[in-house]
Amino acid sequence: MINEKMYALGSKRSSIREIFEYAKTRAQEIGAENVFDFSIGNPSVPAPDAVNETIEKLVKEMPSVALHGYTSAQGDKTARDTIASNYSKRFGVAISGDDLYMTCGAAASLTITLHALHEEGDEVIVFAPYFAEYKVFVEGSGAKLVVLSSDDKTMLPDFTALKKAINQNTKAVLINSPNNPSGVVYGEDTMQTLCDILKEKSAEFGKRIFLISDEPYRELIYDKKTTVVSPMRYYDDSIVCYSYSKSLSLPGERIGYIAVNPRMVNAKTVYASVCGAGRSLGFVCAPALFQRVVASCDGMTADLSIYKRNRDLLYNALTEYGFTCIYPDGAFYLFMKAGEADAKAFCERAKKHELLFVAGDDFGYPGWVRIAYCVQTEQIERALPLFKALAEEYRLGEK
Amino acid sequence: MINEKMYALGSKRSSIREIFEYAKTRAQEIGAENVFDFSIGNPSVPAPDAVNETIEKLVKEMPSVALHGYTSAQGDKTARDTIASNYSKRFGVAISGDDLYMTCGAAASLTITLHALHEEGDEVIVFAPYFAEYKVFVEGSGAKLVVLSSDDKTMLPDFTALKKAINQNTKAVLINSPNNPSGVVYGEDTMQTLCDILKEKSAEFGKRIFLISDEPYRELIYDKKTTVVSPMRYYDDSIVCYSYSKSLSLPGERIGYIAVNPRMVNAKTVYASVCGAGRSLGFVCAPALFQRVVASCDGMTADLSIYKRNRDLLYNALTEYGFTCIYPDGAFYLFMKAGEADAKAFCERAKKHELLFVAGDDFGYPGWVRIAYCVQTEQIERALPLFKALAEEYRLGEK
Repeated sequence: MINEKMYALGSKRSSIREIFEYAKTRAQEIGAENVFDFSIGNPSVPAPDAVNETIEKLVKEMPSVALHGYTSAQGDKTARDTIASNYSKRFGVAISGDDLYMTCGAAASLTITLHALHEEGDEVIVFAPYFAEYKVFVEGSGAKLVVLSSDDKTMLPDFTALKKAINQNTKAVLINSPNNPSGVVYGEDTMQTLCDILKEKSAEFGKRIFLISDEPYRELIYDKKTTVVSPMRYYDDSIVCYSYSKSLSLPGERIGYIAVNPRMVNAKTVYASVCGAGRSLGFVCAPALFQRVVASCDGMTADLSIYKRNRDLLYNALTEYGFTCIYPDGAFYLFMKAGEADAKAFCERAKKHELLFVAGDDFGYPGWVRIAYCVQTEQIERALPLFKALAEEYRLGEK
Repeated sequence: MINEKMYALGSKRSSIREIFEYAKTRAQEIGAENVFDFSIGNPSVPAPDAVNETIEKLVKEMPSVALHGYTSAQGDKTARDTIASNYSKRFGVAISGDDLYMTCGAAASLTITLHALHEEGDEVIVFAPYFAEYKVFVEGSGAKLVVLSSDDKTMLPDFTALKKAINQNTKAVLINSPNNPSGVVYGEDTMQTLCDILKEKSAEFGKRIFLISDEPYRELIYDKKTTVVSPMRYYDDSIVCYSYSKSLSLPGERIGYIAVNPRMVNAKTVYASVCGAGRSLGFVCAPALFQRVVASCDGMTADLSIYKRNRDLLYNALTEYGFTCIYPDGAFYLFMKAGEADAKAFCERAKKHELLFVAGDDFGYPGWVRIAYCVQTEQIERALPLFKALAEEYRLGEK
C-alpha cells in the first residue's frame, strides 16, 4: 500500500531521538537542571546579530514581490556571486557564482549531489565514524554505502583500506571534516594523501571517482594551528556540500549550497545534473529571504568562543578522569572510548548518573560514544562530577 | 559518469524558461514596456502586510536559538495545530496538527507524498491539461504517469476515461483545483463523482487508490458562487498537498504542508511514510521562521482583487475578439484555444505582436495556450489591442 522503505525510515526512531524523548520525561521526574543531555547537535549559541539585522533591513527595503518571489532554481545570482567570491578569496581556488547551487541545507546538498551522480550499481565510500544519515541519503539515491574504518588513535581514514575498497563501481568518496562525531579535521597532508589515492585509482580504473566533501562544521575550529582546506585545491573531481546551520546557528532555516569544482572535466554537465536532481526531488529554489541573509553574513560565525571553552573544559576533565578521548579540532562533538566494549551498555550506565550521550554504534563505530558539547558551559561544569563518578565506576583512573 | 535523467532535467530548458529568456532579450531591443510576457505564474501582488510584520515581531521577540533552530521533522507543533484547527473550521472536516507535515512548498509536498506511497509498478493518473512538473515528480518517484483527457468544453475530467484507465497498478489520482493551466475549479458535484468512482474501483480491485489533491491555488477564487471543497469530506484515502506560495505571495520562501486524512485506514502508517520520504529526500524540516509566519497568517491572502480585475478584463476582451476561452474560476491563468491547430505556431504568430504565452503542449493539451494574468493590470490594458490584432489575423471575429 505504501513504500516500506519510507515507512521504515519514518517510523523507526533514531537513538538520538529516543534519548531526546527520554531526557524530556526524565526532566519532568527530577527537574530539567538535573538531566545532562549531550545527545543533540543543535547549536546553543545565538546567530550573529547581523542575521536578524539583515532580515529586518531586507523586509523594510526590498519590495515584497522581489524579496519573497522565486529566485532562479540555482539561487539568486547576486547571492551566489558574493558567496563564490568569498570562497575564492578564503580558500585560494577560483570559483564563480555559476558553480554554486543554493540548497535547503546540508541534507539537501547531499541528496541532490548523490542523485545527480547516481548510476546503476554505484558504490559510495564513507569512513566510520560517519554521520548516520549518510546511509539514508546514499541508499535513497540508489547507491550502495561502503563503510571503511578509521585509525583508532587519530580517527583519520584508513588509506590502506581505501586502496583495497575502490573498484569499478566506486562513484564517490564522501568525507566530513570537521567530523561528526569525532571532531577531527583533515589537514593538508590527509587531504593530499586522499586525493593522490583518488587520482591513482581513477587512472587505474579509467573512470572518474568524485570526492564529495560535506562541510557543515567548516567554520567551527578552535585552535590557530588548525586549518581547514578546500578539496578543490587538491582534486578536480570534487564537490563541496555546505550549510550555514552550524556556522550561523540557523539549522531550522535550511540554507546552504553545493559548489561544483569548475576545474573538473565537463563541470557544466555535472552542474546541470545537480540542477536536474534538485528539480526532481522537489526543491524548486532555496528559501529566498535566507539566500540573501547568508550572502550578506557569509564569513561571519556565531560566537565560537563558547564552544571552545566547552571543548577545553570537557576534554581536559575527561582525559584527567582516565577516559580516552579524541581531541576535537573542530565541530562541537567529543568522541570518547566507552568504559566497556559495549558502548550501549556504557550509555545505560551513564544514564544512571543522568548523563545522556549517543553510542558510537549509530555512527558505525562501536565501543565509543559521542558527547555533543553545544550546550551551556554551566551544564558541563555541573556534569563533570558525574563523569568523574562514571570513570571511577569503571576504575579508569587506576589503569 | 552522471545520472542521465537528472542531466536531461537540468539541461533541457522548459518552454516557459525559453520564453522568459526571450522576453529579457526582446525587452533590451524594444523596451520592457513593449514586451507583454504572460508566460510565468509568479505572483504580482505583494504579500499581506501581516507577513513582514510577523517576521519583524518574531525576530524581535523570540530567542534566536529557538526561532532559527530545528523544529521537529514534521514541523513546529504549535504551527501545525493552528493550521489544522483553521482547516477543520473552514472545510468542516476534523484534522489535527498530528495529521500535518510541514514542507518546503508544493513541489516538496508532491515529491514527498509520491515517494511515500510508491511501490514497484505503480501508475499515477492525471488529467490533461496538467502542470508540467507532475511528470517530473511522478517519474522521479519511480511511478508511471498516465495522462487522461478532459472535456474540451469544461476542462473537467473525462470520467469515462478514468473508469477505463484505473487498473491493478493505479496507486493514485492526482488532481489540481483550481487548475493550472485552465483555472477550472472542481465543485461539489465533480468531487463527488470522482470520489464515487475511486470508491467503486478500490472495491473492484481490492486495493486502495489514493486521491492526491494539489491545492496551491486554493485561495485564488474570484466569484461568490465558486466554492472550493476539501477532498477529505468525500474520500478517506485522500492527501492534501498545499503551499502558501500563491495565497500569501511567498513562492521563493518554500513553505507549505501535506495533510493526511486521519479517516483513512492506517493513517498513522501513511503519515510515517511521509516522514520517512521527507527524510530520505533530504528535507529535515520546513524553514523554521516561515513555519511560524504562515501559521500566524494562515487564512489571509494577498490582495486578490487585482487578479479578479485582470481576469475579468482579459476574459471579456478575448471572448469579444472571438477567442474561445475557458472561464477561469480560480488561479491566475486563462486557457484559450489557439487560432490554429498548432498552438506552438500560434504562439510564434503572437510573438510577432510582442505577446508571449505558453503552448498547451507543455500541459499535455495541444491546440490551446496558457495566459498567466498575474501581471500589472495596466500591462493587460495595453496588450488588448495586440490581442485584437492577433484575432483579426486569424479572422476570428468573422466566424
